[in-house]
Amino acid sequence: MTTLQVPGFIAGAACAGIKKDKKSDLGIIFSEVPACAAGVFTTNRVQAAPVLLDKERIKSGLCQAIVVNSGNANACTGARGLRDACAVAKAAADALGIDDELTLVASTGVIGRPLDVSAIKSVLPQLARELTPSGLFDVARAIMTTDTFPKAVLKKGTFDRKSFTVAAVAKGAGMIRPDMATMLCFVCTDVAATPETLGNTLKRAVAGSFNTITVDGDTSTNDTVIALANGLSGINLTEPSCAGVFQKILNELLFTLALQIVQDGEGATKLVTIEVRSAPDEKSARQVAYTVANSPLVKTALFGQDANWGRIMAAVGRAGVPLNPETVDIFFDNVCVVRDGQGRGNAAEEEANRVLRGDRFTISIDLKLGSKGATIHTCDLSTDYIRINSHYRT
Amino acid sequence: MTTLQVPGFIAGAACAGIKKDKKSDLGIIFSEVPACAAGVFTTNRVQAAPVLLDKERIKSGLCQAIVVNSGNANACTGARGLRDACAVAKAAADALGIDDELTLVASTGVIGRPLDVSAIKSVLPQLARELTPSGLFDVARAIMTTDTFPKAVLKKGTFDRKSFTVAAVAKGAGMIRPDMATMLCFVCTDVAATPETLGNTLKRAVAGSFNTITVDGDTSTNDTVIALANGLSGINLTEPSCAGVFQKILNELLFTLALQIVQDGEGATKLVTIEVRSAPDEKSARQVAYTVANSPLVKTALFGQDANWGRIMAAVGRAGVPLNPETVDIFFDNVCVVRDGQGRGNAAEEEANRVLRGDRFTISIDLKLGSKGATIHTCDLSTDYIRINSHYRT
Repeated sequence: MTTLQVPGFIAGAACAGIKKDKKSDLGIIFSEVPACAAGVFTTNRVQAAPVLLDKERIKSGLCQAIVVNSGNANACTGARGLRDACAVAKAAADALGIDDELTLVASTGVIGRPLDVSAIKSVLPQLARELTPSGLFDVARAIMTTDTFPKAVLKKGTFDRKSFTVAAVAKGAGMIRPDMATMLCFVCTDVAATPETLGNTLKRAVAGSFNTITVDGDTSTNDTVIALANGLSGINLTEPSCAGVFQKILNELLFTLALQIVQDGEGATKLVTIEVRSAPDEKSARQVAYTVANSPLVKTALFGQDANWGRIMAAVGRAGVPLNPETVDIFFDNVCVVRDGQGRGNAAEEEANRVLRGDRFTISIDLKLGSKGATIHTCDLSTDYIRINSHYRT
Repeated sequence: MTTLQVPGFIAGAACAGIKKDKKSDLGIIFSEVPACAAGVFTTNRVQAAPVLLDKERIKSGLCQAIVVNSGNANACTGARGLRDACAVAKAAADALGIDDELTLVASTGVIGRPLDVSAIKSVLPQLARELTPSGLFDVARAIMTTDTFPKAVLKKGTFDRKSFTVAAVAKGAGMIRPDMATMLCFVCTDVAATPETLGNTLKRAVAGSFNTITVDGDTSTNDTVIALANGLSGINLTEPSCAGVFQKILNELLFTLALQIVQDGEGATKLVTIEVRSAPDEKSARQVAYTVANSPLVKTALFGQDANWGRIMAAVGRAGVPLNPETVDIFFDNVCVVRDGQGRGNAAEEEANRVLRGDRFTISIDLKLGSKGATIHTCDLSTDYIRINSHYRT
């Protein structure tokens, strides 16, 4: 992997002791100049304090620093939570020598516990001094909770013979069914943009990436994607042809991260794409795909490497979408196991079982009702998911 | 337990070799006279052959026999499945010496495999000869799949100094989120009724019992509740005051069975009641209750005996219901862990953890928004659920 480095950005991480395991749990991303900023946030009606704060601050369209902690979500913490989020932003701004209105915060971890602000404050000054151009990867590590690997990607693009860079880090392994938002993700780029252009570009990239994945159907209270564009490359997003180039690269970047999140789904052993085809409309297609992707019975069968398509049919049937069971086809990769609502027999199932032994495959469901489709990425449900989540706080 | 015996009904079970383990898998319930019949069936758009057949036949309002098998759901089996269901009904009717239009069928088990009709036919004649007044409990055993105990209840009532009896058997442990229906349940009673009265009484009882439970949010393709009323007690449901007495008893009976199903939820270690109070309307209340009850993160925390109310708040917030997080209270039995959207601290959580160590408790969620409520019964999600369901067919 190339070094995770974007001109004009420095970053770093430290251990503030919020996570129990003495691992790094505090990160800062800093832009040397105030950057154009846009964000997408959780649609959960219960929203964490940092989400509430960022949604206000990002209205200015400017940001110079993001402070993020793991180990505590600062959610369901009321007025105190908001004061704590402001205090962290203020302390970081002071340490960095910037206006605290230019500082955004993000948190992930346990819900409902007060944030240990003094622990964070005590490490911020030194952390602020030690930021480096290659420190973004350390931030990716610091925001991990049940993640088993850090998630980071970098891409370079060229436009008009000038080159630009986009890098992003993300976290997320459980409580994943982003809806117009995702778990934490921070994007840094050196293109120039207006908040509106950057916001629209980001929304489109999120729609095709984080909003197409689900691990357990649970939408988090803290989902946050923030993009910072510092303009140092001299390339401007407001030029339409440049916007296209940038959009494509951002789409790829966030899609890669989204797949990494599913792949790292708590206890996951398989990365499974659910494709619904020939639906009457896109909403129905998504509904069928999500119902299949979130069915515990489907997910456990995938873990057991059992082509139990009956459970897929049952999930399709209860998705609340008008359909004719007698026109439904189901494929595991290219193996057709159901044709017109009926199983194609043992030979087909054996072949499908072979597909399921792989760690990445596609389940296609053809409704033969219309021309719309939807694609969702998910993982299986394993005994490890239960083990991780029954003892998460203990 | 009193013997499961209703005047005028005989029943029995046998092993047809459909289940792999040589346990009984075929049952017959027989009314000595044609009985008034009513049914409630799955709302899944994918419906098994026996469901399709019964929905047609029950229109006559009359039934004399129910033949039921476990080990194979006869679902997603197309035209052949329907022919097979008819053939089983016909063979049973012949063996019992009745009109086959008076015979209903039910199946539960694996979806998508052809039913072994000849295996069933080969044991039907002897089974028909061996039916006994106390055989209903054997039927409860024969319809078990992943159930760990047979589910059967009997209640007697009196009206106008005459006594009547209602007994019911049920099965169901996974693929349980009935919706206007449930897994298999057969009710036998000696009251007299019209199909309409019996149907309405049954619907009301189902609404307050099977439609208030969820194990995994998966609605089955085979959910079936059938009630037979043979009139032998001389008591008639069409008398309004009698209808009230009967309704109360049927409600209790089906509610007991519904709780038994949740208690026997695949891998379940806890029976958990989710109560949503002060919601703006009943639909919203049910939606919040079901979202909490089906959240994998909530269910695994319950398994881990961890009062992780943050996951409950997150589920409440994503239920798609307008609410104010800052008015939400959450209780584990009588222990308030969240007041106005915020945690009440470690002492309250410790107390709540003590509640969670029990095997039956209530989680109450007070939205403080209106006057409507809903109550749902569910269970936790354990490693055993995964174990059972990842290898169900192998």
